[in-house]
Formats: sequence, structure tokens, C-alpha cells
Amino acid sequence: MKISRLTSSILTSAFFLSASQAATISPPMWWVGMQESHLQLLIEEEGVGDGTVTTNFPGVVVKGIVPSSNDNTLFVDLEISDDAKPGKVSLTIEKKSGDTITLDYALHARQTGSANRQGFDSKDTIYLLTPDRFSNGDTQNDDVDGYKDALDRENKGGRHGGDIQGIINHLDYLSKMGFTQIWSMPLLENAMDSYSYHGYAITDYYNIDPRYGSNADYKKLSVAAKEQGIGLIMDMVLNHIGGNHPWMNTAPDENWIHHDGEFSATTHIRETMHDIHGTQFDKAAFNDGWFVPSMPDLNQSNPKLATYLIQNAVWWVEYAGLSGIRVDTYSYSDKAFLSAWTHRLMTEYPQLNIVGEEWSVNPVITSYWQHGTLRKDGYKSWLPGVMDFPLQAALVTALNEDEGWGTGLKKLFEVLAGDFIYGDPSKLVIFADNHDMSRIYTQLGHDIDKWKMAMTTILTTRGIPQIFYGTELLMQNPGTEDHGIIRSNFPGGWKGDSSNGFTGQGLTPEQTNAQQFIRNLLQLRQSYPTLFSGEMTHFVPFDGTYVYFRHDAETQQQLMVVLNKGDEKALDIYRFDERLSTFSQIQRVDAKGFATKALDSTLEVPANQATVWLISK
Amino acid sequence: MKISRLTSSILTSAFFLSASQAATISPPMWWVGMQESHLQLLIEEEGVGDGTVTTNFPGVVVKGIVPSSNDNTLFVDLEISDDAKPGKVSLTIEKKSGDTITLDYALHARQTGSANRQGFDSKDTIYLLTPDRFSNGDTQNDDVDGYKDALDRENKGGRHGGDIQGIINHLDYLSKMGFTQIWSMPLLENAMDSYSYHGYAITDYYNIDPRYGSNADYKKLSVAAKEQGIGLIMDMVLNHIGGNHPWMNTAPDENWIHHDGEFSATTHIRETMHDIHGTQFDKAAFNDGWFVPSMPDLNQSNPKLATYLIQNAVWWVEYAGLSGIRVDTYSYSDKAFLSAWTHRLMTEYPQLNIVGEEWSVNPVITSYWQHGTLRKDGYKSWLPGVMDFPLQAALVTALNEDEGWGTGLKKLFEVLAGDFIYGDPSKLVIFADNHDMSRIYTQLGHDIDKWKMAMTTILTTRGIPQIFYGTELLMQNPGTEDHGIIRSNFPGGWKGDSSNGFTGQGLTPEQTNAQQFIRNLLQLRQSYPTLFSGEMTHFVPFDGTYVYFRHDAETQQQLMVVLNKGDEKALDIYRFDERLSTFSQIQRVDAKGFATKALDSTLEVPANQATVWLISK
Repeated sequence: MKISRLTSSILTSAFFLSASQAATISPPMWWVGMQESHLQLLIEEEGVGDGTVTTNFPGVVVKGIVPSSNDNTLFVDLEISDDAKPGKVSLTIEKKSGDTITLDYALHARQTGSANRQGFDSKDTIYLLTPDRFSNGDTQNDDVDGYKDALDRENKGGRHGGDIQGIINHLDYLSKMGFTQIWSMPLLENAMDSYSYHGYAITDYYNIDPRYGSNADYKKLSVAAKEQGIGLIMDMVLNHIGGNHPWMNTAPDENWIHHDGEFSATTHIRETMHDIHGTQFDKAAFNDGWFVPSMPDLNQSNPKLATYLIQNAVWWVEYAGLSGIRVDTYSYSDKAFLSAWTHRLMTEYPQLNIVGEEWSVNPVITSYWQHGTLRKDGYKSWLPGVMDFPLQAALVTALNEDEGWGTGLKKLFEVLAGDFIYGDPSKLVIFADNHDMSRIYTQLGHDIDKWKMAMTTILTTRGIPQIFYGTELLMQNPGTEDHGIIRSNFPGGWKGDSSNGFTGQGLTPEQTNAQQFIRNLLQLRQSYPTLFSGEMTHFVPFDGTYVYFRHDAETQQQLMVVLNKGDEKALDIYRFDERLSTFSQIQRVDAKGFATKALDSTLEVPANQATVWLISK
Repeated sequence: MKISRLTSSILTSAFFLSASQAATISPPMWWVGMQESHLQLLIEEEGVGDGTVTTNFPGVVVKGIVPSSNDNTLFVDLEISDDAKPGKVSLTIEKKSGDTITLDYALHARQTGSANRQGFDSKDTIYLLTPDRFSNGDTQNDDVDGYKDALDRENKGGRHGGDIQGIINHLDYLSKMGFTQIWSMPLLENAMDSYSYHGYAITDYYNIDPRYGSNADYKKLSVAAKEQGIGLIMDMVLNHIGGNHPWMNTAPDENWIHHDGEFSATTHIRETMHDIHGTQFDKAAFNDGWFVPSMPDLNQSNPKLATYLIQNAVWWVEYAGLSGIRVDTYSYSDKAFLSAWTHRLMTEYPQLNIVGEEWSVNPVITSYWQHGTLRKDGYKSWLPGVMDFPLQAALVTALNEDEGWGTGLKKLFEVLAGDFIYGDPSKLVIFADNHDMSRIYTQLGHDIDKWKMAMTTILTTRGIPQIFYGTELLMQNPGTEDHGIIRSNFPGGWKGDSSNGFTGQGLTPEQTNAQQFIRNLLQLRQSYPTLFSGEMTHFVPFDGTYVYFRHDAETQQQLMVVLNKGDEKALDIYRFDERLSTFSQIQRVDAKGFATKALDSTLEVPANQATVWLISK
């Protein structure tokens, strides 16, 4: 059975018309008791422009109408007082023509604790997945009427049928593995003619793509995940939309899309955002340019669009009970808007976490956006974290490059030694790979030792680790950088798959071993919370070995990680005296079967391994 | 005739003993009217330790004796009041033995304007020279009795006889070329057994090496240079001494030399200085380690040594009328000491300039030390400038690398676009090469077009330019990185030289052309001060071309620099509209014979050249 696009839209819309007109309101509903009392509704309806709005709902006041260039849109500023109660707000709209319509607008009560929800943090391990490629839990929605980009598993850039139900079906797997957060690539509607599976070409900011499920399914995922101790991170796209977004036919206002809706490519030169010698020309060429012709670039300097996007983000946090947000192509959006967007979210949800994608390997650029970083230009950012691309690049180089005075592990050391410029390095999201680059196993030349060292590093160094789905099965992309291959189907996610990562059936011994390796590391983190919450102290790499400690002054728990890229050796540990002198015992804990022994002046460490040691009194 | 080491020392010492003892006092004299009233004398004399000191000189009070571990040294704290007059301060010292000696200590009047001297800045161009290799102006001092490292022109690491008189003799050359500052590698005594010509192995902080001349000669150089409009920058070495320094026989105090005078190499890992995850072990391994066995590393965390070095720097600024200081191996010295050292100098001389050498191509590391840079750790630095190694590396890469999306000129753009992290990028000292790396002409593959583009960039971009001696003659070091070759003799600096850079005799046409090219650029800077003092605005490189402007809102002077690495082309200049729209005329000014013409939509620019254009109304 196919669900039609229209049906889907009605099913998932959360408002109801009293009159017969097909009016829409964004956001489709709201909540009482929010920190911010202002709410701007975008009402779309034939001839509604320049109309007036009234309501007599207690605690809701119409503050005014914000003019727009579109005769069929009305931006209404509401003030929702602290004592407003949940209910249906009846809005009476008198059009310029004199016609009157009445729309009901729902105000809900908030979930208890919503404002103080705890966002993801370093105790978590994030599982990044491509929803179209993880598991097909509901074949009924593989094709949906009205959506041209139909199921085509043979096409590496086509839709393969994965969906929200597929994720729900395998929450137990994720939970047993030890993952505690899911970051799914975007699930909102991408009603594009083709190449829509990636999700970054959004055509409806308020509805889940029906091929993934419904808004209700997304909420069901959130609830079910929470029951397994797993939080949900939404991948939000503020910078651009899909070319089939209705806004490309008629935008709610002028200056809604950069370059008047015509393609003009971004330069990708993000340095312009900070450059004290820079020009408006180059800033605009970066900020206002589009990624690709199929993804029109939004002009967030339009205050109505800015408000739309801000409210949309709050709406999803509140509606779906999110634990955090990942922001796509962060710096490509308007800089002042990003300040306002982060401020609003962190004001509504002070413990929320948000991580921005700024794909630069230069920490000066990535750190600039983080809250708490010192900036001479006075720019204010409330963004808690950024993706740590500099660490990702350094990690790969560190493992692939021969050791030398300034090469190999020194690169990893250097990038961490540069943490002093970040507002808070412990809030960086760290990763060995992600959905936009070669699989880490491939980046490391399919060398299992290096892969294990990379995983141990990501799961024991400072920051919030993220693992890309299938990494635990050594998914790889030899000889190609094609995103469709990088984002291959997770084995076992489809009926008839010849192997199954969820059950272990049909996996190669190497895959089974890798999966167990990740499971062990995640278990290790739970057994020794200092591995993620402790202060980090590292020593300059020496003789092909990089050693760091995670330690907690209060609990006195201390662990030592030894990355040994060289041969098996007796490591002189006198160098680490300032961390070891008050301790007397040591035990290897990343693998079973090692007894506690007395701390000696040397420590036998195996070749080409990262080992984790518990240090005790 | 040879001058003996002893005679030289007496000639240049500025104090006199009343008694017969061979006592020495450091500093050898001082001044009244300094900002800082405290002065700590180091008196060295048999049995003087734990003695007492008295004086009845008006305005000079003995505040106390600072204990030391050496029986033959006495650290005396004096307070010199604002109303103290110049004169000979008679110091009566009673030794522990009961013996009494009296020493006269000279207090001088300061030169008018000394405190408010204007240090070098972006209007200047610094000429860096190796004094042993620039010109031999006095063959009498080629060899000096008692100095083992004798003249040996055949030895590339030996002494070649250049001296202060050689510099004095050619001030007219430097002035006519247009250089306005001289930074000579260190001239203080390096009484080493061998390999002493470089000057960084100081054996006497208060005396010029007699093979270069005397303290009086150095002062004479300063005065003569000033008459030609040229300032003098002293190269100071705070981190280490030469192994033959008397301190290696008997140090004034314990903990004077790191590692108790035994060689232990520095790791050179400067990242440890800022690392929030770092260890004391690694910080000490960097900070306390030595460069080489022949250069013992000073422990500036000894407050008496810190004071000694601080006063020594003030002494030379005051004595020799310096316009600034270059600090060798800046970050290798104690961090708290560097804060105190810079603070004292900038308090005594608020307009002085000091530039620190921090050889890192990572701007996060170099910027850290500059005054005005934001630092989360609360570290205070009064250092006005640092050597811009990141720009040097980027410039060479920009010119040598093929143009691509992220390669070539983009590298140069990127490093300048990162200026937002510096306290003040206009105070960075910029250079294409220096005495510790391959000659720029060699780095650029002996490509004269690239060399010219490099020179134009260094002399028109933001910062304070420095040119290494002989660059104007295309001095080069093909096939070797040997410092002795890099620092070859300046042609014409020695009698009988087959060619002469000062007169032009015997130069190749390429050398003559290069020399004229530099002269023209330095003249251009004087003709259009906006080239060094104006605000800089640059555009993202495009199509092998990098364009930037220097402009002054007050005078409305504006110049445009076009680096074109590609073929001759008609440059579309619509991109530069925000800089050009209120101007109507343009004239090429880096070469003669170009008329003013109307600004058109395109500009013809020659292949592989940096051209400079005056934009007018």
C-alpha cells in the first residue's frame, strides 16, 4: 500500500481549520509556559496578506502584523503570557477583501522537565546513521504516491527503503552495543525528484518524510529510545532547502531565498566570516551562495525567516523530546542569525546540547563558533559544541604517517595541545569518520590495528564520541569516495540480507571481532566513567608511543591509555611520575584476563595497540 | 695588531675601582630618572658574599642584600629616588671577613626623550645582517688575543672578519637603498673555542665582542645610523649563554643554569607552553632543555637572574639608543619571566618595539605571545610583536604551489584571513627568509618572477617588513641548507672582492636588476605611506590572482596590489567595487612610465608579476 503525499500531510498536520479554506499555520501548534513569550505565526491562505487578526483567548494577545510582500501570507506576532492555559486559540482573520475566517490554533502543555532536559554530553556515545540505509522496518512506506524518487536499491544514490521503524526495531541492538544517542541524518520531507535519500534537501520543515514514517513515528522513536537510555539528536538544516520546497513557487516574503532563487554557488571560503581584512563581496559570496542548484540557499537575514527557523527548532525539541541538535553546514548561515538561533535555544533549554558542523581542519576556524571562545570582534555565540574536524584529520594522519620528529602521533598530540583556544574542548563532538567522508577503516588502509587504535582514541580522549553506523562491522569503501557506497546498507537491515549485524549471523570473524571491540570499549566507558568525565592529561609522544591519562581528583579514579604504534616494548614510565607517584598498582582493563600488578619502572605494552590501564593506590 | 681580551674588557668597562680589587659590578653603570626606581647590583669580588653595603649618595638607598649561594657574589638592592642626581655613587662594602672595600658606581643623566623613543614600526623596513659576514671595516680586530676562534675565511662556520665598522662604513648604502632599521645578529662577546661567528653563544652580556669592536663602537654605529634615519635593533638572547661564559665556572647563584650545567636537550615542543592537558614534565623538557651542548640554558625562574637579564636589556636600550629589540628563541625562556621582562621594558619605554622569535607556522602558537591577544589562561604579555613565521611559510607555498581550490595563493590569503586571533597583526615582523633558513631566492627555485612577487608582497602587506642582507643581490644557497653558506659574505664587504654590492661593480645584470627592484619598492613605500600605514583589505584569490588594497580613510589615498601568478590577463575588477566605486582613475606606480587612466571594467595585468596601482578620484 502506498500512502499519498496529501494524506500524509493531513495525517501529520497538527492544526484544524474551522472554515473550509486550506489555510496552513506554522508552527502548527505551540506550548504554554515557554521561556520566550513571543510567537510569530506564519499563516498561509489566499488573500490573507495585510489582514487583521483577533483572538479572545485568555493570555494570548495579538501584538501586531508584520508586513510581507506576499498577498497570501500573514505574519502574526502573538504574546503568550505566563498564565495562558492549554487549549484551542480561536483566531479570527479579516482579510483585506472583508472576508473573515476563523482558525483554531492549539496550545499544549509542556512535558514535565522539558525546559531542563539534559542534552547529550561526554558520557554519551553518539551513533550516526543514514536512515535510508540502516534498516527497512516498514516496507509499506517504501514508495509513497506523489514522491517521485521511488525505491531503487540498485541505485547507490537512490532510496533503499530504510525508515524510522527500522531504527525503532533495532534500539535494542544499539542499547546492547552501548550507544546512548542517535544522530540520524535528516528525516524531514525531501520531496525531490531524485537523489533525496540523504535528507538535506528539505521541502517541509514541519513534517517527517512519509517514506521514513510520520511525525508520530518520530516521536515514538524518541520515546522508545529514551526507554532504552538513548537520546535523540536531530540533524537540522538551516542553510538551505530542497529545490522542490513550496517556497520556490511562492515564498512567504521577499528576500527569502538568496540570489532571488537563482543558483549561484557558494565559494565555501569560510575564512571570510572572521577575516578582519575581508570584504562584503567575499562574505556574501560565501554566505549567500548555494551548495548546489538543487538546494536553494535561505536568507536568514530576513527576520521573519530567522524567526521561522528558530521556532521550528524549538518546536522539534519540544515536540519530539530531543536531547540535542546537530546543525548542518553551520557557518554558511547568516552569522547574526546563528547568534540569535543559538541564544534562543539555549535560553529555552539551558542544558540542551547543540553541535555545529564547521568542516575546517583549522581549530582557529572551528573554535570561533563555540560558546566561551574568546573573540576580539565581540561576536556572541551560544553554540555549545562543534564537530572536531581538526582532531579527525589529525587522528588519521597520526596513525597513517610514519613516526618522526614532527610526524605521526605528534600530530594528534599537537591538535589536542591546541585545545586552549576552545571555549570548552570537552564539548567537542569527536569522530573518526562521518557520512561525508571515506569510512575510517578505508582511511586507515583497512588495517585492523590502526582501526582499533582509532576507536580506542575516539572513545577515551576528551570530547563526545560519535561513531558512524556500520563502523562496528568494518564497513568500507575501497577505491571510491562515492557517498552512496560510504552510506551502504547496514547488513541485516533488509529482509534477505546475507549477513546480519544485529544478530551476528553471517558476519566474518573480523566483523564479529570489531563489533565486540566496540562493545567492549563502550562497556569500559560505563565501568570507568573517568574515561569520559575525568580531566585529561597527556604526554608528548615519544618513541612511537602516545600516553594520556583520564583522572578524577574527587574519586581518585585514574586510567592510562597507551597508544603504541611501534613494536612490543617495555615502556619507561618514569616520565609519567607526576601522574603515577601516588599510585602503586596497575591493571590492563581494555581486555579480560589481566590481573592487577605492582607499578614497576617499566610497563610491557603490546605492538600496534592502544591499551587502557586502571591505575590504583 | 691584536687587541687582547683583557685590554678589551677594561676598555669597555664603565666602572672604576677605588680599591685594588678586581671587583665587577653589573650593570656597569646606570641612569637617574628611570621609571623603575629599583636597581639590583651584582657585585662579584672575592669573599664579598653575605657582606653589607652602605652609601651616603643623596637619593640612593641600599634597601637590602639578597642572599646567594656564592661566597664571591653580592646582590644589592638599591632604590634610586626621582631626585637623585647623576654622579659617582660611593659604595662601601664590608665583607664577612671584616675587610672593607669601596667601589664607585656611576649614575648618568639620560638622553633627552629616551623614555619616549619611538620604536620601529610598519613605516620601517628592517635590514637583517650577519655582522661577521657583512663587511670587514677594521682588519685590526680580525683576530684578538685570548679569543680562540680566529679568522678563517675558508671555513664556512668560521669567523670572516666582518665588524661594526663595516656596518658603519655602509650606512650610506643602506640609507640609499631605503632601509630604515638594522637588526644585526648578536654582537656581544662570544668567546667560544669555535663556531662563534653567529653570536648566539654569549659569554658577556655587557660587552661587545672585540672582534666586532667595542661598546663605544656600537654606540657610534647607533648615532651614525640615526643620522641617516636608521634605527638599531638589538638581537637579545635570554634563553642561553655560550659554554665559555664565566658563569659556567662559577655562577652568581645556585639554580642559575638548567640541569645544573649539564647538557640535556630541549624537546623543542613549544606546544607544551599552552597545553591545558600538558604536564610539568613536558613543559620542563621544553623550557629547561638546552639547544646544544655548547649553549647552556639559563634558568630565568631564578629571580636574580631574571632581574639581571631585565636590567641588561634596559641597559642596552638606554646605553646604545636602541629603537627596538629582537628576542631570540622567545618561548624557550621561562614564561613568567617573559611577562616580567616585557612589562619592564614597555613600562620604561612605552613606544619601544620588541619582536619575539617563535618559530611555529601555527598562528595559534605565535599569536599567543603578542600583547593584546586574548588568552583564556590569564597570561599577561607585553610583547608588541612576533616574527610572522606562518606568513613566511604561506608565502613560499603560495608562490611555489600550483593554483587550485585550496592551494597556491589561497594559502597566503588564508594566513592573513586568520589575523583575527592576533593582538595586533600590524606589528608582526614579516619576512620572506631569515638567517636560519634557505635564502628566499633558493626557496623559490631561483625563479626571479617569484622572487619579485615575494618582495612586493613583503613590502606592501600588513606588518613590519624585514629583508635579509644580500637578498637584494639574489644571494642563494643551492643544494645546501648550511648556515655558513646561507650567511655568505656580502659581495664588496671585503677588500679584493670580485664584485661589490655597495658600488654595483661586477654585479650580474640580474643582481643589478634585483637591487634596483628592492630600491624601487622601498622608494614606493616612501612615496605612498598608505602602503605601510593604511588599512588592508583583500579579496579571495581567484583565477591565479590575489588582489589587496591599502587605503587610508583620512587621506583618501588608496593603492591596489595585484599578484598575478598566471598569464597576462584582463582582470575583471567588478569584484572590487566596494573599494573602487568612488574612484575613477588608476595608475601603475611600481614601475615608471605608466600614465594615469580611467578605471575601466577590466585591467590589463602582466603575467607572473605583482603590480602596484594608485587609485584616485
